Amino acid sequence: MASVSAHPDVMEKLVSLAKRRGFIFQSSEIYGGTGSVWDYGPLGVELKKNVKDRWWHAMVRARDDIEGLDAAILMHPRVWEASGHVAGFTDPLIDCRNCKRRFRADDPAIKGTPGTPDAQCPVCGSKGTLSEPRLFNLMFKTFMGPMEESAAIVYLRPETAQGIFVNFLNVQQSTRQKIPFGIAQIGKAFRNEITPGNFIFRTREFEQMEMQFFVEPGTDEEHFEYWKAQRMEWHRSLGLAPDRLRYKPHEQLAHYARAAADIEFDFGGSLGYQEIEGIHNRSDFDLGRHQEYSGKKLEYFDQPKNRRYIPYVIETSVGADRTTLALLVNAYREEEVPGETEGRTVLGLAPSIAPIKAGVFPLVKKDGMPEMAERVANDLRRTFPIFYDDGGAIGRRYRRQDEVGTPFGITIDGQSTQDGTVTVRDRDTLQQVRVAADQLRGYIAERVAPAE
Amino acid sequence: MASVSAHPDVMEKLVSLAKRRGFIFQSSEIYGGTGSVWDYGPLGVELKKNVKDRWWHAMVRARDDIEGLDAAILMHPRVWEASGHVAGFTDPLIDCRNCKRRFRADDPAIKGTPGTPDAQCPVCGSKGTLSEPRLFNLMFKTFMGPMEESAAIVYLRPETAQGIFVNFLNVQQSTRQKIPFGIAQIGKAFRNEITPGNFIFRTREFEQMEMQFFVEPGTDEEHFEYWKAQRMEWHRSLGLAPDRLRYKPHEQLAHYARAAADIEFDFGGSLGYQEIEGIHNRSDFDLGRHQEYSGKKLEYFDQPKNRRYIPYVIETSVGADRTTLALLVNAYREEEVPGETEGRTVLGLAPSIAPIKAGVFPLVKKDGMPEMAERVANDLRRTFPIFYDDGGAIGRRYRRQDEVGTPFGITIDGQSTQDGTVTVRDRDTLQQVRVAADQLRGYIAERVAPAE
Repeated sequence: MASVSAHPDVMEKLVSLAKRRGFIFQSSEIYGGTGSVWDYGPLGVELKKNVKDRWWHAMVRARDDIEGLDAAILMHPRVWEASGHVAGFTDPLIDCRNCKRRFRADDPAIKGTPGTPDAQCPVCGSKGTLSEPRLFNLMFKTFMGPMEESAAIVYLRPETAQGIFVNFLNVQQSTRQKIPFGIAQIGKAFRNEITPGNFIFRTREFEQMEMQFFVEPGTDEEHFEYWKAQRMEWHRSLGLAPDRLRYKPHEQLAHYARAAADIEFDFGGSLGYQEIEGIHNRSDFDLGRHQEYSGKKLEYFDQPKNRRYIPYVIETSVGADRTTLALLVNAYREEEVPGETEGRTVLGLAPSIAPIKAGVFPLVKKDGMPEMAERVANDLRRTFPIFYDDGGAIGRRYRRQDEVGTPFGITIDGQSTQDGTVTVRDRDTLQQVRVAADQLRGYIAERVAPAE
Repeated sequence: MASVSAHPDVMEKLVSLAKRRGFIFQSSEIYGGTGSVWDYGPLGVELKKNVKDRWWHAMVRARDDIEGLDAAILMHPRVWEASGHVAGFTDPLIDCRNCKRRFRADDPAIKGTPGTPDAQCPVCGSKGTLSEPRLFNLMFKTFMGPMEESAAIVYLRPETAQGIFVNFLNVQQSTRQKIPFGIAQIGKAFRNEITPGNFIFRTREFEQMEMQFFVEPGTDEEHFEYWKAQRMEWHRSLGLAPDRLRYKPHEQLAHYARAAADIEFDFGGSLGYQEIEGIHNRSDFDLGRHQEYSGKKLEYFDQPKNRRYIPYVIETSVGADRTTLALLVNAYREEEVPGETEGRTVLGLAPSIAPIKAGVFPLVKKDGMPEMAERVANDLRRTFPIFYDDGGAIGRRYRRQDEVGTPFGITIDGQSTQDGTVTVRDRDTLQQVRVAADQLRGYIAERVAPAE
């Protein structure tokens, strides 16, 4: 359990801002919502897309030893027998025979020992009505084929990793990669959690970014250390504060794991440090099991060493939604503005991941300023997401963009229509500089490119 | 039904090439496959990502009147009652009481009238064992919450559109958009088809790119025509041959539709012309139904006109998988090479959507060529997907890249290590030019940028 963090709890304010400004909405809200499922609005989808594109670039396109993959959500049901999910991907649950509510066995609200007369239901208050804990599988189940009774039961994948394992040889052979190499994938996964929560932190439908790196047994420890360091560096490169990130070694290892560590981010308040990524040494467990269950050899032949083996796997598994939430929490601040009575709310997102790169504003709605501003906005929009706003006082328009993390505010004023320059305001320093309108694209491109 | 096309049937060759070179694999292949579900391999995922990114840029980022969205796959079950899918998203099916097989009612292999003694099962040959057609819903069903009996039945969305309709006001209010404006989304959808097929043309799990444009009633016809033209232009901009694209007006309209047209592509062979995109005038049907079923007002207030109304919707709905398949079919060619005995297979993909932008090859593995080639490859890889290959004869390495659509082949030869220039070979013209290595990034960037 995380202890209370020194950082403030901004979650409630973020949920409100996220809805009001179009980052994240409750799913099916007009119908009362769907439990722990969320929709990304216009700004949220851009922010999350930037996160995913950054990961894809760092893990796939910028490297010659990792290949991309996009495996389907629906897989053959035997996959989940081989992986151990059918037998073991369970939570112990307790139910109340009186009110029919269901609880996790570790729910702190339960008093007494479930299954005995002195156990009390935390909802209806009945005594002795709580069952002993029973195991329930967390996979969503569906039916392929037209009739439930005759159709194959298939599962919505609870993790993307198995799509990579079953494609190991297809990818290796089609790309002629040699070990060590990796396979990376971004995709949805589903878990029928009984107690999801904390906004988009733990949801029933979520998006994973996973990479499995296949290595020669005996070299796995050095690769594990390498990937631990690499992945921490990636989170820092997005702008997450280094002093809010830490490693957490696993004290108890899963039966297939030789080593495991989490990267945790401090979400503030009572949530505190929580996992955003896991790095695991999975040994040859997964490929070995799929070889056993499928009857297909999943070995690799190392020609120079004349050695045949099932590779070990170092896995890096990060949530796109959790990373997005961490970025929002990390970026949120309220501050006073020197010389002004009203404060402001700012999302201090790194320019490279901010959903909108620049706001474009005519100072007033006359003297050719709106026309020039629209030309500037339309030109920049061919390259960057741009927001054009001609409504209300200029200060209010700046504040609206500060609140959604837009790094630059471009204002077309009286001088602009004379000499072709505009002012560019920096979201964080509030400094304004004059830039020639025809130099704007390069000016912004340089500042929103990710650091290499 | 499409008539036989004058273009050759390349599907079988494409399926083979797609597997061998890592575009598309059968899902869960080592377990015998999952019916009509496919996995995208290293090259396929890049090609499809390029298609999706082009759509997102054209529909969202480059426009100021369309907002992006990413709604969840799992929605409130009432959504599908309101949309009409629970009652009406069905196929008539016939089953055989003897062999238990199931058929679509329009299956041409069925002889006689099902439900009568003279009907014969096309599989087991029994007479009089075929049932009358019965309606089966095509939505995949699952259960949210831990127990099937007590849990809510939820569906995997059969289309992304409803996620846009239920978020109409959330998006409009958070972005302050004024009608006419649109909401666009890319995402997975699922249909429990009884007769899917033709590779990735009709699959049970697929990815849609949908946009709903909300307009004032009475202006819907002009917007419908505008979007018909826009969308055709987009397909052409990807490089699909104009003479293989056509409009197909719907002869029978769905009950909610005021007008509908498909964009069809000629896939060749017996498949011929098939729908890749639909453009629909859906009137106020969807918002009206959601207003009725949710009890929430979904009206728009037009301030200048002082008019309150439920907007009409013009929808553009295109399959990312179908577009990817059309691009592969369109690009595939086998040809003779002047002066060579062996022919070649080429994917003539537009450089902007090709999965790999350049192959980098040292002419021979000595005299510093591999070292320089690796430097060139690593430098370019920061910007583009690049394939480095030092194995085998140079002609063979060119051919391998031709076959996957790589537009440029960069060779480092003896002269390169002397004067810093390399040869760049054009996939289509086979012309080679010498370019200074430090100018390569600009040279390629210019040629792989989409035409504006």
